[in-house]
Amino acid sequence: MTTQMTTENTNTHDEGQIRQLIVDQQSAICAKDVDRIMAYYTTDVIYFDCKPPFQTQSADALRRIWEECFPYFPDSFKTETRDLNIFVSGSLAFAHWLLRFTEMAPDHPAMHTWLRFTAGYQRQQGKWQIVHEHCSVPFDPHTSQAVLTLDV
Amino acid sequence: MTTQMTTENTNTHDEGQIRQLIVDQQSAICAKDVDRIMAYYTTDVIYFDCKPPFQTQSADALRRIWEECFPYFPDSFKTETRDLNIFVSGSLAFAHWLLRFTEMAPDHPAMHTWLRFTAGYQRQQGKWQIVHEHCSVPFDPHTSQAVLTLDV
Repeated sequence: MTTQMTTENTNTHDEGQIRQLIVDQQSAICAKDVDRIMAYYTTDVIYFDCKPPFQTQSADALRRIWEECFPYFPDSFKTETRDLNIFVSGSLAFAHWLLRFTEMAPDHPAMHTWLRFTAGYQRQQGKWQIVHEHCSVPFDPHTSQAVLTLDV
Repeated sequence: MTTQMTTENTNTHDEGQIRQLIVDQQSAICAKDVDRIMAYYTTDVIYFDCKPPFQTQSADALRRIWEECFPYFPDSFKTETRDLNIFVSGSLAFAHWLLRFTEMAPDHPAMHTWLRFTAGYQRQQGKWQIVHEHCSVPFDPHTSQAVLTLDV
């Protein structure tokens, strides 16, 4: 029973750290601060983004992806997260959630939808980092159009 | 050192089990055997599919999704997997990989592309099961078209 409680407390603590990582990185995204964004990824991260390329391998390549997309972002925006689930065991964790961008001009063409995120984490030298992330929207198989206005 | 070795051996064993789960489930998909496909999911699985709905919550709902898509699958096909990465710690694991359908009629409209998969697993009562899965292709933000022909 004691062990069980300890495990639960440890997991609650670790889940809190993962939750904070997600919040902090979203804050960095809103600030378009590429150094802070990249601080959460391992150097060999593999990223599946909602737009091409099909996959991005390494933090160096991912940094360029982030830098290239900032001009398409609204000048100012916030993020809203829902349905966050976090799983932790030892030095491994993964999480999934839905995210949308808010508080931007209503006619801005970018990102008027929810995005789906899944991320995998490893704790290395006491610090949780993202080893894999997957962001997407579904597409209509009849039209091949991305589905950007679905209710969730 | 002994502990380290034991941990590595355990992880190798667990990684082998996850790898086999992925192979076995793909075999079940090729056989369009919904009972075998569903045997790998927890009852409260949350699924992000490459087509709508945006997310599917529960195995009952996911079973219907699988059943509804079988008529669109080729009569006969195989799968090819590449870039599989598996991470394990204790009773938690996640993996990501690329998959395409092969050995079907070359003019079949379905799935002439690679798909990206990320899955999270928990070991419950000695058996690994999928608690979350995320399948997608990227979309072109200028046209909103799913990108189905990318080189990977």
